[in-house]
Amino acid sequence: MRRTLTVDDIDDLAIGAWIIGTGGGGNPYLNHLNVRNLMDDGRTFELISADELADDAQVAVLSTMGAPVVMQERLQDSRDVARAVEIMADHLGSSFDALMSTEIGGSNAFQPLMAAAHLDLPVVDADAMGRAYPEAQMTSFAIAGLQPWPLSLVDPRGVEAVITRVPTWKWMERASRVLTVETGSMAATCKAPRTGAEVKQWGVTGSMSFAIELGATVRRAQRHHEPPVEAVTKVAGGKVLFRGKIVDVERRTTGGFLRGRARLDGLEAWSGGGVELEFQNEWLVARLDGEVIATVPHLICLLDDESGEAVGTETARYGQRVALIAMTAPELFRSEAGLRYVGPRAMGYDFDPVDPLAPEAKA
Amino acid sequence: MRRTLTVDDIDDLAIGAWIIGTGGGGNPYLNHLNVRNLMDDGRTFELISADELADDAQVAVLSTMGAPVVMQERLQDSRDVARAVEIMADHLGSSFDALMSTEIGGSNAFQPLMAAAHLDLPVVDADAMGRAYPEAQMTSFAIAGLQPWPLSLVDPRGVEAVITRVPTWKWMERASRVLTVETGSMAATCKAPRTGAEVKQWGVTGSMSFAIELGATVRRAQRHHEPPVEAVTKVAGGKVLFRGKIVDVERRTTGGFLRGRARLDGLEAWSGGGVELEFQNEWLVARLDGEVIATVPHLICLLDDESGEAVGTETARYGQRVALIAMTAPELFRSEAGLRYVGPRAMGYDFDPVDPLAPEAKA
Repeated sequence: MRRTLTVDDIDDLAIGAWIIGTGGGGNPYLNHLNVRNLMDDGRTFELISADELADDAQVAVLSTMGAPVVMQERLQDSRDVARAVEIMADHLGSSFDALMSTEIGGSNAFQPLMAAAHLDLPVVDADAMGRAYPEAQMTSFAIAGLQPWPLSLVDPRGVEAVITRVPTWKWMERASRVLTVETGSMAATCKAPRTGAEVKQWGVTGSMSFAIELGATVRRAQRHHEPPVEAVTKVAGGKVLFRGKIVDVERRTTGGFLRGRARLDGLEAWSGGGVELEFQNEWLVARLDGEVIATVPHLICLLDDESGEAVGTETARYGQRVALIAMTAPELFRSEAGLRYVGPRAMGYDFDPVDPLAPEAKA
Repeated sequence: MRRTLTVDDIDDLAIGAWIIGTGGGGNPYLNHLNVRNLMDDGRTFELISADELADDAQVAVLSTMGAPVVMQERLQDSRDVARAVEIMADHLGSSFDALMSTEIGGSNAFQPLMAAAHLDLPVVDADAMGRAYPEAQMTSFAIAGLQPWPLSLVDPRGVEAVITRVPTWKWMERASRVLTVETGSMAATCKAPRTGAEVKQWGVTGSMSFAIELGATVRRAQRHHEPPVEAVTKVAGGKVLFRGKIVDVERRTTGGFLRGRARLDGLEAWSGGGVELEFQNEWLVARLDGEVIATVPHLICLLDDESGEAVGTETARYGQRVALIAMTAPELFRSEAGLRYVGPRAMGYDFDPVDPLAPEAKA
């Protein structure tokens, strides 16, 4: 499958990617406008399925690292994203055949498009998270044990670096994170390149077209005045956990991350009490009246109850009417190896994962 | 001039480099033993004068970055130093003709020797500071406006990186410093390579043989029971500013640096009151009864009054009998361009430099 993305696709992607960003990955708003602008300038974007890749194809894997709050104020130049790919190609002494995103969630879904505008390369319909996760080692490629290096990094003011070797995936996260924080908490990165065979075996394939479909579903429901939250859970196989309004948000930008918690109170029509959501860029854990009802690696999404669009950890504010929904994570991330990277314990919690959609779940 | 260094040269270098380290650059003790060990294993070290370099010779410029206190406890493997040079050569796609030290002061004087043991390259009799300074942009090469990138970095646990571009020398310091701190406050770095022509024009030439001569002078005085401090000031053109004992040391390791202050009280035979020394890895400012009597870029050295050997910012302790001496910095570092990098204002002080050896100086 190979197709040229339309303006509608791009608009749908902005909505869908923000939903499966699970609160993080950055608000796509600015990058969405950026890509719309590039389209107005005549750039076109080819989406190819992972199947189209030759086994020895070289794929550049892109994401912008940093704190979502910073990205709200510091605009990204698409040439910086392309520059990260060029630095990597220089370092390797070879060229790339395609581009893909590390994380389909949020703003990072647009990274390969921003680079493609300058590099004339197709974008692979895949990512390495199937959502957004806070840290760079929380990918299917890391879970698979693939090589974590090299990584190239570009900051808007012109600091450029290549991390050429690391002992572990976590060390790649640490080394690239401190450079990102020091240069202002926003840097375009090109992660360890992958072959076509690696993307086909270990990538979360079809995730970009899924995000586009999800966004199209929301827009269709909006147009037809149907309940958009239910449209989302239907197409995504998700479940509504709670409806209410945001009554408190604590947020701090620390160590290159946005951390904090949000509290939701139930509305009168809803019998439940209060929900607390904890986040590190993304929503990690949901508690209902103190009991854990959903955790990573499963997708915890907060949606505006009227529009069905995502409420992000950096945009959540007092008074918003929201629906809390959950979706089950892909199997690789639920495996024993996967949980070591993306389970609650990998994020500092002392409990097992909770999937509210699993048959044994109480919620 | 080209000569093979003897064991005596190496022993002299350890003493001389520690003196002109002005309290910093790291205690050479461990690296000295390391190089002695490499000599016992049959390695030889060629010292060549900068004049020997062809104009287009490629020179690798080496230093270990970090906090001296950490280096007292975390031993350095000479292969890591050589590895920084190899990574740089890989990055450039070319090879090196010689090695030199960024800073002749302290432990860093031994860096090119440690790499040379594995790379079979001569060591240039030059550095880029003529002493030790706390930050990586405080070099003759930066003052000359030469290109600050690339820089390669190796940490003992195997994080390897190349910083391929920076907007300023200060940004190279910041980017390499955060990587150093994150990986444990000790990393071998290979700075921006220099041509033979650049080293001849902008290097502090002859600094390694000067450090060796200074150390030989101290050892000779020790053998002949002559006052070693006066022997140092005579050969180095220095001046004794104060004699006394250390009565207080405040030290903290922060941001990858060792910072703090030391207080000296005069001994009875000495009419003066108290001296306060402030340091950031190196002694930066000396005050006598509150009045500034010496500052960077001039060399402020604290010597054990009995042995004539250096007392470092990380080894200074209560009760030591010391002599405070000063030497005038080379002209380049005293120039207007030089002071922007290494003057008191560059280190956060709001006053002009004070050279106690200048005719107009009061002290």
